[in-house]
Formats: sequence, structure tokens, C-alpha cells
Amino acid sequence: MNITLIPVAPAAGSGLMNGANAVVFDVLRATSTIVTALSSGYRRVYPVVDADEARRMAGERGFSLAGERGGRKISGFPLGNSPLEFCAGPAAGADSLVLTTSNGTAAIRSAAVAEKVLTGSIINARAAARAAVAEGRDIILVCAGSGGLYSLDDVLGAGFVLLEIIDAAARPPEMDDQALAALCLARYYRQDPLAGLMESSHGRKLLGLGLERDLRWCARLNLYDAAPVLYGEYIAV
Amino acid sequence: MNITLIPVAPAAGSGLMNGANAVVFDVLRATSTIVTALSSGYRRVYPVVDADEARRMAGERGFSLAGERGGRKISGFPLGNSPLEFCAGPAAGADSLVLTTSNGTAAIRSAAVAEKVLTGSIINARAAARAAVAEGRDIILVCAGSGGLYSLDDVLGAGFVLLEIIDAAARPPEMDDQALAALCLARYYRQDPLAGLMESSHGRKLLGLGLERDLRWCARLNLYDAAPVLYGEYIAV
Repeated sequence: MNITLIPVAPAAGSGLMNGANAVVFDVLRATSTIVTALSSGYRRVYPVVDADEARRMAGERGFSLAGERGGRKISGFPLGNSPLEFCAGPAAGADSLVLTTSNGTAAIRSAAVAEKVLTGSIINARAAARAAVAEGRDIILVCAGSGGLYSLDDVLGAGFVLLEIIDAAARPPEMDDQALAALCLARYYRQDPLAGLMESSHGRKLLGLGLERDLRWCARLNLYDAAPVLYGEYIAV
Repeated sequence: MNITLIPVAPAAGSGLMNGANAVVFDVLRATSTIVTALSSGYRRVYPVVDADEARRMAGERGFSLAGERGGRKISGFPLGNSPLEFCAGPAAGADSLVLTTSNGTAAIRSAAVAEKVLTGSIINARAAARAAVAEGRDIILVCAGSGGLYSLDDVLGAGFVLLEIIDAAARPPEMDDQALAALCLARYYRQDPLAGLMESSHGRKLLGLGLERDLRWCARLNLYDAAPVLYGEYIAV
């Protein structure tokens, strides 16, 4: 089994993903939020790249609507991109969620060519790892990045999944150098994932927006035993 | 002071380098070899991208000629790219060296737009760090990469220089996430830089070519107190 890490999700996917299992990371915060929502009573999350399309889909189908740009809730949207908005579960009859975010939803879409697309984060690292290795396929770890740039929080999340993959795999996987570096990061921050998130540039930006509780949530290693999968247009467990 | 890490040297340089000090890393092995040669009696190293141009320059000017492609000495060249070929110093009258390598010489050339271009490696990490911070300019850490791909050995070398920069700087520098990840790598491998080089894909390739002694040499932290600088067409201390 070969493991490759893509540090910034390419706009148009990557040939590497064909026939492989992809795990997508936007640790702060889209994939952490999706894992939280689907572990708390939401049944489906529809990741949508465009905000207008998200609004239209939610209106037409009667879905809940959530969205974020630049770390802030989109104006007029009832929900943002904080996992804390979803951990208590949906209102009755509102368990399908449309979500559009700055980087994560596009990263998930870019991985759609993979055989299986998993939602990865620190809070579901072990479950994501087990689902990633289940078929013995090659694994592509796809980091969303932030505005096209490398984002430490995503690579750190991938590193925590790698730690669990090494535990779960029958044989030691072959890793490229980017995956190896992510593994080192996770080992370095193993005792304190929150420190890694707080030192990352995106983490510092969110701290500046008063979102420390979100970082604390996203740093809770293996909080949930769920590995959400992309099925066509929606994600579910 | 801002520090930015470029994980794979761009072919055409980068606007980031204007007005900044650049430190270039091809730890396995070009920059380690250059530091070794210039610490061992060679006066000037001419980094040349093209092998034919290197051969012509050496012939016309009576310089020593060294070159490597794919980890091996170029056919017909008297010297390759192993630091062990240079640590005993030059023959009399042969202290100017023309060097062409797969990735490192192009990376050095790509950084020529910077205010000052330093040669970085694990074996001169402290000296490179002190020279990098001397004028208080922003610092760009330029990793050569390997065939256009991220190469762990180069990022690890940059991390060791970062550790020394933090010691040498008057105030804590601002780092981007790539630099922060390199710093974590160096902290992770601090007690055993050789392990990092041996785990990297390029290191494993060189081990397969029987070059373990080269890896051991390139892992000797702060072996030399020299910070070679690019002056136009040549590098000197």
C-alpha cells in the first residue's frame, strides 16, 4: 500500500486519486464540522462550492443551510462553519445540511474521482484510518490548504490519521516524503494537538476572530468513531 | 523578520526573494558538498545548471570539474557530487571548482534575485543561520526538492537552520506554516539527523547506490563554521 500526501488540494483533482481511497482534511474547520454534524444526528451533508448554489439547493429541497467565508458565517445564512453549532444535533425534520466553506467543500469535490472519499480530521482520526485501509487500496491524503497555500492544521490532521493507519495496516505502508513529514508533525504534537492548531497560521487567524473554543473542539483526538463517506452529492456515515 | 519556506525551488525564482536573504538547501548532496569543498581549501565553486556548459567552462578556464545526474557521477567528469571527494581539499592550483548537479545548482541559480544567497545544509546550520539573520532582512528558505518534488532531506536541513535562527535572532521571527513544519521536523530529528536523511526517499535512493557514508557526512550537525555566499557566477566564503 502506497500513501501519498497532497499538501494543497488541486482545483481539478489529481490523476493520483484514480483507483485510490482519498481522505480529505480541512481540520479548521470544514471536515471537523462535517464529522461532528454526522455524529450528532444529521443524516446527510451536501458539500457545495458556490454560496448561491448552496442557498438555492437548501431553499428548493428544504435543507438546513450553513456557510462560511474568511472564517465568518456568510451573511444571511442561518448557520456557519463551527462544529459547536452542530454538536447538539438538528432540529426535527432538518437533518439534511447544505454546507459551503472557503476551502474544504472544494477540496472534497476535487477528490470525487477517487474510489472512496473519506472525511478526515483529528476528531475522527482512528475511524478515518480504518476506513481508509479497509480495501487495501493506495491512499491519498488530500489537504484542503487555505487560499491555495499549505496549511499546517490540515497536514497535522493527516499526520494523526497516518499514525492510526500504521497501527491498523497489516504491513507497514510505503509513504512519500510529504506523508512522512506529516507523520513527524503528528508525533511531535501527539501529546498536545491543540498546540499545533494554535501555532498554525489559520489557527491564529481563528483565534483572532474569538474562535478558541472551535480550535479546542477540533483538537480532541478520536472524539468520534465515524468515517463519513462521499456518496455522489452528499456525505453520510 | 518574516521567514518563508519554499518546499521546491521554482524554475524561475520567486518574487518573494526580492530584498530578502535566501538560504538554499540541497542537503543530499549539492549544498553539503559545496560547504565541504569551501571549508577544505577550494576557493570558489561555480554552480552551473547545464552539464555541457560546465564541461566547457572548466576546460576554458582550467577549473576542476564535478557533476552528478541521478545520484551518479556524470560520465567523463573527473569528480562527482560526494562531499567525501572534496573534504581533503584540492590539488595544487585546482582550487576553483565547476559543479553541476540534478537539482541543487538550478536551485541556487533560481535564488540569484535575492539580496544575499547563502548555501545551507545540516553541516553548516549555525553558520548559515547567523549569516541569514545578520542584516535583519526577511529570510526565504529555498529547498531544491528532487525532480520537482518535495524532498524531506532539504526541508529537514532548513529546519535545522531555523532552530539556529531562533537562537540567533534578537526577536522571535514570524514563520509561515511550511517553515513551522520544517522546525517541527528538525525538533523531531534533533537527536538523530541521520535517521531523517535515511528515511527520506532521496536518502533511500542514495543508500541503494551504496552511498551511506555520504548520508553520514551530510548529517553531521554544525561540522563546519562556514556560510558560503553566491557572488555573481561563483560561491565563496
